[in-house]
Amino acid sequence: MAHESAGMVIILGDGLGDRPEADLDGLTPAEAANTPNLDRLAAEGISGMMDPIRPGVPAGSDTAHLSILGYDPYQTYTGRGPFEALGIGMEVRRGDICFRCNFATVDDQFNVVDRRAGRIDSGTHELAQALDGMKVGDVTCVFKESVEHRAALILRGPDLGPAVGDADPHEEGARVLAVEGSDAAGERTAQAVNDFVCRSHEILEDHPVNEARRKAGKPPANIVLPRGAGVAPHLESFEDKYGFTGACIVEVGLIKGLGRYLEMEVVDVPGATGSRETDEGALADAVLAALGRHPFVLCNMKAPDLSGHDGNPKAKAEDIEKLDRLVQRVVEGLREPACLAVTGDHSTPCSVQDHSGDPVPIVMWGPGVRTDAVKAFGERPAQTGGLGRIRGHDVMSILTSLTARQEKFGA
Amino acid sequence: MAHESAGMVIILGDGLGDRPEADLDGLTPAEAANTPNLDRLAAEGISGMMDPIRPGVPAGSDTAHLSILGYDPYQTYTGRGPFEALGIGMEVRRGDICFRCNFATVDDQFNVVDRRAGRIDSGTHELAQALDGMKVGDVTCVFKESVEHRAALILRGPDLGPAVGDADPHEEGARVLAVEGSDAAGERTAQAVNDFVCRSHEILEDHPVNEARRKAGKPPANIVLPRGAGVAPHLESFEDKYGFTGACIVEVGLIKGLGRYLEMEVVDVPGATGSRETDEGALADAVLAALGRHPFVLCNMKAPDLSGHDGNPKAKAEDIEKLDRLVQRVVEGLREPACLAVTGDHSTPCSVQDHSGDPVPIVMWGPGVRTDAVKAFGERPAQTGGLGRIRGHDVMSILTSLTARQEKFGA
Repeated sequence: MAHESAGMVIILGDGLGDRPEADLDGLTPAEAANTPNLDRLAAEGISGMMDPIRPGVPAGSDTAHLSILGYDPYQTYTGRGPFEALGIGMEVRRGDICFRCNFATVDDQFNVVDRRAGRIDSGTHELAQALDGMKVGDVTCVFKESVEHRAALILRGPDLGPAVGDADPHEEGARVLAVEGSDAAGERTAQAVNDFVCRSHEILEDHPVNEARRKAGKPPANIVLPRGAGVAPHLESFEDKYGFTGACIVEVGLIKGLGRYLEMEVVDVPGATGSRETDEGALADAVLAALGRHPFVLCNMKAPDLSGHDGNPKAKAEDIEKLDRLVQRVVEGLREPACLAVTGDHSTPCSVQDHSGDPVPIVMWGPGVRTDAVKAFGERPAQTGGLGRIRGHDVMSILTSLTARQEKFGA
Repeated sequence: MAHESAGMVIILGDGLGDRPEADLDGLTPAEAANTPNLDRLAAEGISGMMDPIRPGVPAGSDTAHLSILGYDPYQTYTGRGPFEALGIGMEVRRGDICFRCNFATVDDQFNVVDRRAGRIDSGTHELAQALDGMKVGDVTCVFKESVEHRAALILRGPDLGPAVGDADPHEEGARVLAVEGSDAAGERTAQAVNDFVCRSHEILEDHPVNEARRKAGKPPANIVLPRGAGVAPHLESFEDKYGFTGACIVEVGLIKGLGRYLEMEVVDVPGATGSRETDEGALADAVLAALGRHPFVLCNMKAPDLSGHDGNPKAKAEDIEKLDRLVQRVVEGLREPACLAVTGDHSTPCSVQDHSGDPVPIVMWGPGVRTDAVKAFGERPAQTGGLGRIRGHDVMSILTSLTARQEKFGA
């Protein structure tokens, strides 16, 4: 019996992997958490360790998801800009040059007084509207605010390239940088960036939002500082790549943007807040519903990454217990056979408070899966598992092989 | 003590890897089989899991053998044609453009009535002889029948290339396709293919074999439809690659053809039928004899793949017991030290009845091999082995390292 109708689900606890913690008696959060459902999957399935990119390389959320979805980030990833723009719902076209931006405060000599304009948290929509659509030469500037002081800029025009530096000097007291390009397309782009930065200051300096901020004693958001240029890559759509469709049940804008760019169905789930209080049941139900429409579903729950960045191992263990309930609801709700892979997109150890290059435990479960002796979910149990050490790039290959969706290579 | 005189033997159970089977109490065929000799090798040697190509990729027999012999199939494999031709004993020269073909039935308007000419099973040798040696311009057509309606075509001539489509429309009722090339060499080749196809119809239409078929109410094999063009790749010979010679003790035409193409000694073993009744003792004796002539011997016993394709786990366990006897006879007959690797070229799970992307258990045994705690041969014992998870491409490297035949990379 081949399982050609079996669905495929990847469930990621964002930043799930961790290191031993003294506060958890030397266990990792995943080892310390009470996870009867993940343990059941480990006992009935096959475990291993997964390097999102390759051993020791700390993955970003975007590169990790690209890799786990089977795209080589070294081939496709030029900078965070495009995914940042996608993440806040901007329409990104292949060839667009995209930047992450900050609203910042500068003085009259273009010295940066506050890189985050006092962590401005309102009025940025109006400020962004004043800049969106600006033309500099034959380049169109598409601009949109994100949360707080963050925003994204798209430069759209002929012969642009991503080989440009940052306008953001990355420290306060320093002068805004005149951007330079390192090739011909980069030079054209740098000129457009510099024009955009100057014009942003002219337009924002006396904008009513900033007048009000000055009156309230707050630093004005009187300039935009782009950084992290990237060109929107020529990625095959998910369906073109695999011959079947997929859905993303994810909480973070960056990953939603990636899903949209791959032309997957990106579902907005009420209650999925991307916070530690997110509704894991709603996420699970969205996974189950999407499985009725697509053979493949990717789900990412953000919470463990937040606790990892906060350096709070007990909170992270609770987040992983939340993931366990999400998995339980998916497994118990399956109406057709499905192969599941549960893992993380990367490690965010509490002791590091940032992404690390440690591999992440992975468990695969479903019809046809070879088993092993592992009975529990977590880093050290998974290290002894039958999957051995695989890479993010292998996950889709293994799932599509298990569900008989792959062509033989050769005869 | 380095073992520079030690021989190297790779013994493959074709399609050996499998998945847990309810009919075998949840064991795989390799786990369920009574294999005292393979178990001894596991106890005395080192075990692991081997992905013929890479994790999750279902390998063909040709690409798997290429990879296990140390050739990168992604670099060398352009299509099945060349190996298909080699497999039926045709002499393939570097640069030849090779096609898989069907004898088919067409009507007067070149519409395909039967893509397999009623699965013709006799007379194809005579039909092939009527086409073999045809000249179209400065291109020579070498043509030979395979089993049933299958055949292979080689185009040999100047400036040909594999960038051509199929003449076979792959569905009945459709018209035979006029082949087009997608580059200059492809266009030259396309012209030769189209001429060959037209001439095949003229020559075969009234051939005595077809007159007889019509009288018997069978569809005539009145055209040849080529597909799957590939160029015979520029593979280094085995000896040029490694600096020592090797022999192939294999049963299947495709792999014999590969061995010949690599200029290895390809031994025809009486009693090696390629069926489940093959004489494993004769295969073992041929391995031992070849070891007297070459430092390296590759042996492949086809049987487990047949039972896998048949979906018969008990038969497959018996086939692996046959492999165990083959290994016993080799180990007991060794006159010089040798390093053995016993594995499969790929998995053919009984539940899939086709090749899958699951890794295959591998055991390596011989002087200098580090050992591990594994005491039995099979998927799940091997998952815990000291080799970890390796790739087909690693096997020759490890064997040549164990036998001190490799130059240091660096100083």
